[in-house]
Amino acid sequence: MYDIDTTHDPKLKSWVVSANQTGCDFPLQNLPFGRFKLRGIESGWKIGVAIGDQVLDLRAVGLIDTDDMNCVMAASPEARQLLRRKLSEGLREGSSQHPLWTSALVPQDECEYTVPCRVGDYTDFYTSVHHATTVGKQFRPDNPLLPNYKWIPIGYHGRASSIRVSGSTFKRPRGQTKAPDALIPSFGPSKRLDYELELGWFVGAGNEQGEPIDIGNAESHLFGVTLFNDWSARDIQGWEYQPLGPFLSKNFASTVSPWMVTMEALAPFRAAFERAAEDPQPLPYLEDEANRARVAFSISLEVLLQTAKMREASEAPVRLSATNTSRAAYWTPAQLVAHHTVNGCNLQPGDLLGSGTLSGPESTEAGSLMELTVSGKNPITLPNGEVRSFLEDGDTLILRGWCETDGATRIGLGECSGTVVAP
Amino acid sequence: MYDIDTTHDPKLKSWVVSANQTGCDFPLQNLPFGRFKLRGIESGWKIGVAIGDQVLDLRAVGLIDTDDMNCVMAASPEARQLLRRKLSEGLREGSSQHPLWTSALVPQDECEYTVPCRVGDYTDFYTSVHHATTVGKQFRPDNPLLPNYKWIPIGYHGRASSIRVSGSTFKRPRGQTKAPDALIPSFGPSKRLDYELELGWFVGAGNEQGEPIDIGNAESHLFGVTLFNDWSARDIQGWEYQPLGPFLSKNFASTVSPWMVTMEALAPFRAAFERAAEDPQPLPYLEDEANRARVAFSISLEVLLQTAKMREASEAPVRLSATNTSRAAYWTPAQLVAHHTVNGCNLQPGDLLGSGTLSGPESTEAGSLMELTVSGKNPITLPNGEVRSFLEDGDTLILRGWCETDGATRIGLGECSGTVVAP
Repeated sequence: MYDIDTTHDPKLKSWVVSANQTGCDFPLQNLPFGRFKLRGIESGWKIGVAIGDQVLDLRAVGLIDTDDMNCVMAASPEARQLLRRKLSEGLREGSSQHPLWTSALVPQDECEYTVPCRVGDYTDFYTSVHHATTVGKQFRPDNPLLPNYKWIPIGYHGRASSIRVSGSTFKRPRGQTKAPDALIPSFGPSKRLDYELELGWFVGAGNEQGEPIDIGNAESHLFGVTLFNDWSARDIQGWEYQPLGPFLSKNFASTVSPWMVTMEALAPFRAAFERAAEDPQPLPYLEDEANRARVAFSISLEVLLQTAKMREASEAPVRLSATNTSRAAYWTPAQLVAHHTVNGCNLQPGDLLGSGTLSGPESTEAGSLMELTVSGKNPITLPNGEVRSFLEDGDTLILRGWCETDGATRIGLGECSGTVVAP
Repeated sequence: MYDIDTTHDPKLKSWVVSANQTGCDFPLQNLPFGRFKLRGIESGWKIGVAIGDQVLDLRAVGLIDTDDMNCVMAASPEARQLLRRKLSEGLREGSSQHPLWTSALVPQDECEYTVPCRVGDYTDFYTSVHHATTVGKQFRPDNPLLPNYKWIPIGYHGRASSIRVSGSTFKRPRGQTKAPDALIPSFGPSKRLDYELELGWFVGAGNEQGEPIDIGNAESHLFGVTLFNDWSARDIQGWEYQPLGPFLSKNFASTVSPWMVTMEALAPFRAAFERAAEDPQPLPYLEDEANRARVAFSISLEVLLQTAKMREASEAPVRLSATNTSRAAYWTPAQLVAHHTVNGCNLQPGDLLGSGTLSGPESTEAGSLMELTVSGKNPITLPNGEVRSFLEDGDTLILRGWCETDGATRIGLGECSGTVVAP
């Protein structure tokens, strides 16, 4: 488990002055990793760290000797902590690296980005009990929360090939759907296209096949976290998902934010995980007794929508909902890793573990339109008069996340945006 | 769609004399691709083609200039057909390549193998209606075959990282299970470990995200086929699989045969797909009217078991079941590709499409122990007196496959074996 160290000291300032502004997502205490290149320049993807409104080219400053992010992620926790300390020291006010490193900075808004690492396998979990209950009610009115939910961190495998970075567009998927009263299915563009507010936990060092990761050691196998949008076609999902789970309703596109906020950076933002008295005690392989008070994280999240009309009128996105992971997630990241590997399944550097839709207990905290509009029955009216049950072509959906707590410098996860286009 | 060409002429013989023996899996008419290296020698994986009891090193003979199988698989159908013709001509009796190519041959039994390409995403389908019905009866007695089955080629995403090549062992998985009459789940080694007899279809050229592959063109995006064993822990599956599908019950290990038999090699073994009169006509995106009479394949399959006791007593494996794809599969490989991409999902070279368990209509044609023993209720007694409901530690399970038809030379898929060891 990662501890708070000197790199979190809120008094630390950077010689990159934009990093010191209040509300900046990427202060010196954050230092998230991503892959970038200068827009319009032919080159491979480089590994960078966001600082203020700049990106530091890690290879250019000699901190790494590879362009392969997955290699960097595979390093031991000790090596990663050392890299973080070097970065923190080099970017601090008064550092002797200042003159040299300045030449390795590029403005973020002159860069393009890609998925921050090579994703081998992508698993999506289902960690919000509020989401599971609300959605369960819609698919199975008599049986919303299944009996296994509070024993097993329910998860399933997703599609890695169609994950794209923030700023991408995707075509509205077409597929089979069947209305409850229809005799046979029909085919066409999805009419119930939705988003899902998620976090994506990236695996750092993996495990050998047949060698489970112990819960007490599980977090050291995570590299960091991004925002993640698991776009979902609810009408396709309803018809296809039994008995083997969602497939074409999910695998047409997913969107990830460009920056992986490391587990080291998250250390000040831990939270106790409080189980309700009536909830069962998990089986021992899922219980980290030694760290009970600090196994979860407090990450604030919000969802914003900007329609094509709003964009044309230069109107800012409107907030659809907001929550916090500590209110939404029934299972911790460490529990996801321990469960995933308990059968001997091998994780590899760069694998992605989606949290599942992070909906909090109140209806204003719902992480999908399916929940916010009660499956389209209660459409939302936007400030400009437009109405939404599900997403329309031209809609841009934006996820944002940040961490703040007393005595620590606020850090941000940046932004994860994606736009639906006509099929 | 691939046509029968001169490379299939049954009169053709090879100067590799072992390739001309009756019953050989790898005659000149086959030419399957795999990755090999000489056992005990430090080297990277090389690309080879099986011929008789030998492997031809493709780079050594100058037919390719890469060790990356996925690059070879990404080639156009025309380029692949040209490569096949050069291979066929060079290995024919009387070829001028004979002296030169002889030095690029290594005996198969002196080689080790790996998964034949880099698998990005692995999808498992559920194409046998007999399997779906029999298993459905066990999980849902009142509702065995769900209403979507004959409309949608049901599939879900599997785990790519834990796929291993034939000859591998894996530890019996541990996990959560819950007996129907138990109040809470328990944890331990799976007591209902099973195999699944499948074919694995490998993707050749992929498609861009958002650009579906038309059914008429779908088969040209497949490179070839292997035998595939999707090991399954039925007790873990029963407790975890709702509502998002199988997860830890499947992702601990899968086993694939070393040789990809190409679509070109399969061309003589086509079969008409005959739908029963009462079955619905698929939606147009799944119907290849122009090729109705030749969209399926006839591949014979068998499953054999060798227990630890049998191995110690040098007793040959015993056959558990046998079937043929044309009796087992409700959906064709082309339909799997067209369905998978109809929503814009992008396939990439090397992606694996599992057929799902290929059980034929008779009980002796079942592709899993769950079916053969009726979920353990009717155990099998082996010739040596041992009894099996599910797999025991030390059991080796072997899949074999081959194609034969009048007027064509028999070709084989080789063997896919795997052994369970104690956790």
